[in-house]
Amino acid sequence: MTRNVIPLHIEVINGPNMNLLGEREPELYGTMTLTALEAYLRALGNELDATVDCFQSNHEGALIDRLHQTRRTADGYIFNPAGYTHSSVALRDAVLAVAKPVVEVHLSNPDAREPFRRQSFLADVALGRVNGFGAVGYGLALRGLVHHLRGHAAGR
Amino acid sequence: MTRNVIPLHIEVINGPNMNLLGEREPELYGTMTLTALEAYLRALGNELDATVDCFQSNHEGALIDRLHQTRRTADGYIFNPAGYTHSSVALRDAVLAVAKPVVEVHLSNPDAREPFRRQSFLADVALGRVNGFGAVGYGLALRGLVHHLRGHAAGR
Amino acid sequence: MTRNVIPLHIEVINGPNMNLLGEREPELYGTMTLTALEAYLRALGNELDATVDCFQSNHEGALIDRLHQTRRTADGYIFNPAGYTHSSVALRDAVLAVAKPVVEVHLSNPDAREPFRRQSFLADVALGRVNGFGAVGYGLALRGLVHHLRGHAAGR
Amino acid sequence: MTRNVIPLHIEVINGPNMNLLGEREPELYGTMTLTALEAYLRALGNELDATVDCFQSNHEGALIDRLHQTRRTADGYIFNPAGYTHSSVALRDAVLAVAKPVVEVHLSNPDAREPFRRQSFLADVALGRVNGFGAVGYGLALRGLVHHLRGHAAGR
Amino acid sequence: MTRNVIPLHIEVINGPNMNLLGEREPELYGTMTLTALEAYLRALGNELDATVDCFQSNHEGALIDRLHQTRRTADGYIFNPAGYTHSSVALRDAVLAVAKPVVEVHLSNPDAREPFRRQSFLADVALGRVNGFGAVGYGLALRGLVHHLRGHAAGR
Amino acid sequence: MTRNVIPLHIEVINGPNMNLLGEREPELYGTMTLTALEAYLRALGNELDATVDCFQSNHEGALIDRLHQTRRTADGYIFNPAGYTHSSVALRDAVLAVAKPVVEVHLSNPDAREPFRRQSFLADVALGRVNGFGAVGYGLALRGLVHHLRGHAAGR
Amino acid sequence: MTRNVIPLHIEVINGPNMNLLGEREPELYGTMTLTALEAYLRALGNELDATVDCFQSNHEGALIDRLHQTRRTADGYIFNPAGYTHSSVALRDAVLAVAKPVVEVHLSNPDAREPFRRQSFLADVALGRVNGFGAVGYGLALRGLVHHLRGHAAGR
Amino acid sequence: MTRNVIPLHIEVINGPNMNLLGEREPELYGTMTLTALEAYLRALGNELDATVDCFQSNHEGALIDRLHQTRRTADGYIFNPAGYTHSSVALRDAVLAVAKPVVEVHLSNPDAREPFRRQSFLADVALGRVNGFGAVGYGLALRGLVHHLRGHAAGR
Amino acid sequence: MTRNVIPLHIEVINGPNMNLLGEREPELYGTMTLTALEAYLRALGNELDATVDCFQSNHEGALIDRLHQTRRTADGYIFNPAGYTHSSVALRDAVLAVAKPVVEVHLSNPDAREPFRRQSFLADVALGRVNGFGAVGYGLALRGLVHHLRGHAAGR
Amino acid sequence: MTRNVIPLHIEVINGPNMNLLGEREPELYGTMTLTALEAYLRALGNELDATVDCFQSNHEGALIDRLHQTRRTADGYIFNPAGYTHSSVALRDAVLAVAKPVVEVHLSNPDAREPFRRQSFLADVALGRVNGFGAVGYGLALRGLVHHLRGHAAGR
Amino acid sequence: MTRNVIPLHIEVINGPNMNLLGEREPELYGTMTLTALEAYLRALGNELDATVDCFQSNHEGALIDRLHQTRRTADGYIFNPAGYTHSSVALRDAVLAVAKPVVEVHLSNPDAREPFRRQSFLADVALGRVNGFGAVGYGLALRGLVHHLRGHAAGR
Amino acid sequence: MTRNVIPLHIEVINGPNMNLLGEREPELYGTMTLTALEAYLRALGNELDATVDCFQSNHEGALIDRLHQTRRTADGYIFNPAGYTHSSVALRDAVLAVAKPVVEVHLSNPDAREPFRRQSFLADVALGRVNGFGAVGYGLALRGLVHHLRGHAAGR
Repeated sequence: MTRNVIPLHIEVINGPNMNLLGEREPELYGTMTLTALEAYLRALGNELDATVDCFQSNHEGALIDRLHQTRRTADGYIFNPAGYTHSSVALRDAVLAVAKPVVEVHLSNPDAREPFRRQSFLADVALGRVNGFGAVGYGLALRGLVHHLRGHAAGR
Repeated sequence: MTRNVIPLHIEVINGPNMNLLGEREPELYGTMTLTALEAYLRALGNELDATVDCFQSNHEGALIDRLHQTRRTADGYIFNPAGYTHSSVALRDAVLAVAKPVVEVHLSNPDAREPFRRQSFLADVALGRVNGFGAVGYGLALRGLVHHLRGHAAGR
Repeated sequence: MTRNVIPLHIEVINGPNMNLLGEREPELYGTMTLTALEAYLRALGNELDATVDCFQSNHEGALIDRLHQTRRTADGYIFNPAGYTHSSVALRDAVLAVAKPVVEVHLSNPDAREPFRRQSFLADVALGRVNGFGAVGYGLALRGLVHHLRGHAAGR
Repeated sequence: MTRNVIPLHIEVINGPNMNLLGEREPELYGTMTLTALEAYLRALGNELDATVDCFQSNHEGALIDRLHQTRRTADGYIFNPAGYTHSSVALRDAVLAVAKPVVEVHLSNPDAREPFRRQSFLADVALGRVNGFGAVGYGLALRGLVHHLRGHAAGR
Repeated sequence: MTRNVIPLHIEVINGPNMNLLGEREPELYGTMTLTALEAYLRALGNELDATVDCFQSNHEGALIDRLHQTRRTADGYIFNPAGYTHSSVALRDAVLAVAKPVVEVHLSNPDAREPFRRQSFLADVALGRVNGFGAVGYGLALRGLVHHLRGHAAGR
Repeated sequence: MTRNVIPLHIEVINGPNMNLLGEREPELYGTMTLTALEAYLRALGNELDATVDCFQSNHEGALIDRLHQTRRTADGYIFNPAGYTHSSVALRDAVLAVAKPVVEVHLSNPDAREPFRRQSFLADVALGRVNGFGAVGYGLALRGLVHHLRGHAAGR
Repeated sequence: MTRNVIPLHIEVINGPNMNLLGEREPELYGTMTLTALEAYLRALGNELDATVDCFQSNHEGALIDRLHQTRRTADGYIFNPAGYTHSSVALRDAVLAVAKPVVEVHLSNPDAREPFRRQSFLADVALGRVNGFGAVGYGLALRGLVHHLRGHAAGR
Repeated sequence: MTRNVIPLHIEVINGPNMNLLGEREPELYGTMTLTALEAYLRALGNELDATVDCFQSNHEGALIDRLHQTRRTADGYIFNPAGYTHSSVALRDAVLAVAKPVVEVHLSNPDAREPFRRQSFLADVALGRVNGFGAVGYGLALRGLVHHLRGHAAGR
Repeated sequence: MTRNVIPLHIEVINGPNMNLLGEREPELYGTMTLTALEAYLRALGNELDATVDCFQSNHEGALIDRLHQTRRTADGYIFNPAGYTHSSVALRDAVLAVAKPVVEVHLSNPDAREPFRRQSFLADVALGRVNGFGAVGYGLALRGLVHHLRGHAAGR
Repeated sequence: MTRNVIPLHIEVINGPNMNLLGEREPELYGTMTLTALEAYLRALGNELDATVDCFQSNHEGALIDRLHQTRRTADGYIFNPAGYTHSSVALRDAVLAVAKPVVEVHLSNPDAREPFRRQSFLADVALGRVNGFGAVGYGLALRGLVHHLRGHAAGR
Repeated sequence: MTRNVIPLHIEVINGPNMNLLGEREPELYGTMTLTALEAYLRALGNELDATVDCFQSNHEGALIDRLHQTRRTADGYIFNPAGYTHSSVALRDAVLAVAKPVVEVHLSNPDAREPFRRQSFLADVALGRVNGFGAVGYGLALRGLVHHLRGHAAGR
Repeated sequence: MTRNVIPLHIEVINGPNMNLLGEREPELYGTMTLTALEAYLRALGNELDATVDCFQSNHEGALIDRLHQTRRTADGYIFNPAGYTHSSVALRDAVLAVAKPVVEVHLSNPDAREPFRRQSFLADVALGRVNGFGAVGYGLALRGLVHHLRGHAAGR
């Protein structure tokens, strides 16, 4: 691919229990493992002239640390805070602190589950949200984030 | 494009005030007109081996009629109910009645606006949601819906 | 039938998505079509010395118009506002404006579904309600309304 | 009456203060006494090839006992829990325990009275509801229940 | 009238059931018909050097269409959304889209009626509100809107 | 002015912080002082054959006292309770006690401000409300009140 | 006592757990037994030319039965529904059915206890309430009820 | 009266609009004037060996001042805060500060009026409450308070 | 069993619908009958040097009576109030009145059922709670209660 | 003290019941009197090159008047609205009107008391808040306010 | 012990602040240390033919990690999430992910403490709950869990 | 400094994102870095004869650990839980467990931000709170805490 574009760096951050992806409740979350998901995103990033680094932790504090540590090198974030979505003001504050565009992704459709999953402490400070497409949703988020960062017109 | 895929038909439905796209509150909704958005989606559909038909109305009843009339020919829907998102049980029932996958799209990020925009009568019966990417979000939704309908693995 | 009773005229009005009756979610709404339901009600009306006219629309405004246009000729209404039950103050106001007895009917049992279906903007201004009997409920409502209008003692 | 139908047995159960029917707040509940109502229902049952037994108590426990004692002989119930409608989980549990179809009936229109009358602990576990038709509503409920139990098509 | 003022054009839009004005619940809404109200407003407009056009519909979508179609020619709006006041985000969005001053008028006093009439989706995006003066309130709104548009000091 | 009308007496009462009108948050409340507003209202009253007396206090009790003291001489009131609007049952009771028509006026649009400003303890016992027109709103309220008291048809 | 007054008959009804009065939580409810309380009320009744009958039950249904059975002979009721105060719509309905003045009495101050004790299903249909005076409160209630029934001016 | 009892001093405090007693909404509050009520209470106090002083103000601050000024001489208070009942934390704090028994009295039955009258900031810090007996209720409260202060057994 | 312990007496009380245990909704409540459950508990009591008496009623009042009648002989209670758990302040008051340790038991997991089952009027005045273990939970509760009453260290 | 700083003038305003400081509920509010507190603040002000004037009233209106009268001479305010904190929109509006920095102080910790003390109508328009330090908190507030007004770096 | 049973492995997990057991608020949590509790559980496990491993952490992420790491070897869990009970959706998701029976245990009775302790994000996905028995509750939970896993009839 | 005072040891604990102080949203949080803040507090402590140790972590568990580890050596705490303020029951429990005075500090004014920032799980178990003074607030908190621990009279 020889398009002459400014390269971007995107951080993909996954929250608690995402390490069990592919094994945990597959009827809800699908069968692709986290390793495969991350490989797919790096490949898609390559195609879009964006480097992609991935991180997962079950620790809220480690997710905050990661946001802090990458805040100077990342052009944007794809972030699935999983269970912390609904309870963590600290992660919201970290997103505000890094001051880079963040796309919130959820594998499943949180609006179709327990009522407490309808509240997200991230949604209103995120650039946008992609819910319900399973692993594909990360790819859509990556495309959308790259478009946003390059200021492209809609379309390819 | 010579890939050997089963062709799909997607209906794109836009709700009230979307006819003013590009003119109405451009700082919130962007400058692309509805005509341009629809052309972009038909072109992207072409690239993805999917025909795309588009419809817009300010009338809740006309949106319901459209869902009914296209329910046998459409393989899936991209639907931005706009202001009706937050009040219309009738549209929710129509989506349940057509029994086809529906992706809910919003140009802006409803979670970052007035509190009443946090409730969607569509979200929990939709396949998924794409919020906050402006016109680009329709393209992401179209890609995601086509992937879902073809049962593709993640990625292209 | 030769009973010597004052003839009555009843309007039956069905709201959004009722045109798909018999086809839409049959496990919830049954398999009788709207055409068959309307024929059944006209026949039952005949038996009860009441003429019955039927109307269906997916348009809130058209339902209001119908209430207005028939307000001088109808002695009472059987009204299933479907999805508009839970959101329409305008229909409530139309019912108040026509000032004739209205029986609210629902095919399914709204109390056994999503919480937002527990609110009806019609229930407290209606004469009564019949829920959960499927198409039979319209017949019960028609019998009840005719009894009410003739001021009969209970029973036939 | 010579129709060849399987006979049914229906229990009619009335809750607290219903023994004062005809005397208590007649502008709200009508002038028919409970004795007359029960006679009317037995007669209508006869016409519909259904035996009807009636029971009334002001005691929540006695209503539960009655449901238990008749659970093997009754094909279905017509139940007006009156004031217990809005507070009794125990009666709800009894209805679940007997596992027979129950139609909830109210003489007046609870939605048009105090807000706490809008909550029914029975409504979502009942087959259906008939509200607001006074004593006539019991007859409608009986017809509807018999239809349901015989699996009739709508109409007679 | 020979004052040398810039002429204005005002659109008066009335929502559902307003076509029955003068006939519907006159103890609440008064006996002046809609035709007479509109004539009065055109005459008052003439006196204030403002042309006045009037529109009424029971269809939410038609009200949105009207706002769109007149958005370039109207200097301001007098809008009584009637029952849609309390449920329509779509009309709110239309008002935001036309970006002209809108005065919300109600014949009766919504605060003195059912609790759900206390919520208006229009009130916080309107220039102001006039409630409870019956038909006279439209005249007050017209005077107030004309003053606002001409930037007059208070008083005539 | 020689029209032959029964003269009226109107009390204008302004609540807390209104003495700073013209100086306090002028972008919200405008630049006209309270003295000028009162002069304008007296002049307008003169034109409408109504005497106008004005009163302002920051003391809730003094506002109640004023209502009491003028209850025999006033034909009606124009009342802006300002901050007490949202908290004072005592003022509501005073308005009920004087038993004269009261028009509630607000300079700004309370619905467009903090959520607690949406509750008015006066609104449902007032004749009507005029919000959002700044000082002009008092003039509109005066016209509307005079019309109401004289039982005029709409118009001048 | 030789005053020439029409004799009255008052029913005193005590609800659940009141049989343990004097023994149960004496720091909250005092040390006077129910027997002594009833003797005191009969004596005070005698002094006021009123006969007093007393009843206590832990059974909600028995309390309803008692209200029904005494409704023709009682001129008024003093009623402490104890724990049923906060949950029983059936008792409220019984009070409405007997259509005689009822004074609600509580030994302790329900407003100073758990939040759920602030709701009374009786309070708004009672003539009045006396809370927090322990056994003395019954005497105050009896005096007040007798005054009310005799239409006395305030005072003895 | 020669009983050998320790004399008591009771302060009776009436809040806003109580000065209009007998004139204001007599169907709700009765026809006895405040002057007559105070005379009645002084007479009843005399009979009970208690001096009674009375105070009324429409000013929340004056009511607080009165509580402060009398806190050393009063043995207890009868307090009807009227409209301030539902909004005044400051009066609650004053009652806590004076640390004497206070009986809350209301002429009408606040539980039978608007929902906001169900909240009392005084009720849970008062000794007790007497509602709904009109002017008689003050007499009952005075008797109850005197009994409480003298630690009498129930009865006379 | 020759351990030298002070014998205890435990009352086991089961509320409404528990008489149908083993027959009613066995997938939820299991197949052991109430008779068998009571036998098991008496046997386990024997093993633990505790006599066990059992009682069941569908009548709220009878449950209160039972608590009262056994309050001097019981050392503690195992109480499953079933449906009354969520509505009965009277039972709560009875538990407070008997002033003995009470363990609340539920066969199923109320937190996993309808939202109204999350409120228990007993939980905060009970010693503890055992939910979700079916009939075994009564045995656990009995062990726990006996330990508590004997003040044992944890373990056997 | 010879530092060369611009002198400041601070108004200290105390709300209802603060005149009883040192006497009222000393376990909650401490034993220092208001006179001593004001002397301490004037002395501390002297040390910080700030003149301090103090005012206390139980009258909401007098507190508003004081804010108005001092708005040109005060550089900032230390304000303990006491009980009015939780109910007074009028005081909030006065604070907005004077447009000077205000520090809210509470002697006790309102968050540790009744739930209604958690709402402050002042907190979000104040510069900051100091709660729970008793009289010392005023000194901290004064230091903090002076620092703020002088734009000092943190520390002395 | 020679019973021929399939051995089980149980994980006991304790959440934040449980390391201070025996020292922290002993009147609420008892004086047994965590070390002693764990020894007791291992011994009881031995008696029940179950191995027991114990883990405690103050880190939410570490608790999630522990659930993940033991999910293949544990037959069931005894889990006291302590303070995370009321806020952690991530722990709930981890429990769902490991898909093994989990018994929730609390030393104290959360229903008898602050209102926010009534919500548990674990309760509805747990097998059951044991509250309020102090350290003994863990033993009861272990017995109950072992019974459940072995499918025993009730009792030993 | 030669004052003869008992030395104190104070722990200062800062929660998530506080490591970015001075860099993160400086318009909200100021430009002083965490290092500088901690130096300032140690210096101020020195002046007040108190040693000050500081700790910051983004990990909720680490904050709990720190509270535990220092609980024997610290005389009091200054604690800014940042985002965990609004969600962490575990931190609240840790504060209760250490049983030392804790002052809650916030740089900004949480009451002036998003509604969810109004809830603090720490506020009601803290000694006091200092909000809105930026870094200076820590100094005020330190002074206040030292005063409290030494039991000084107000002032220096």
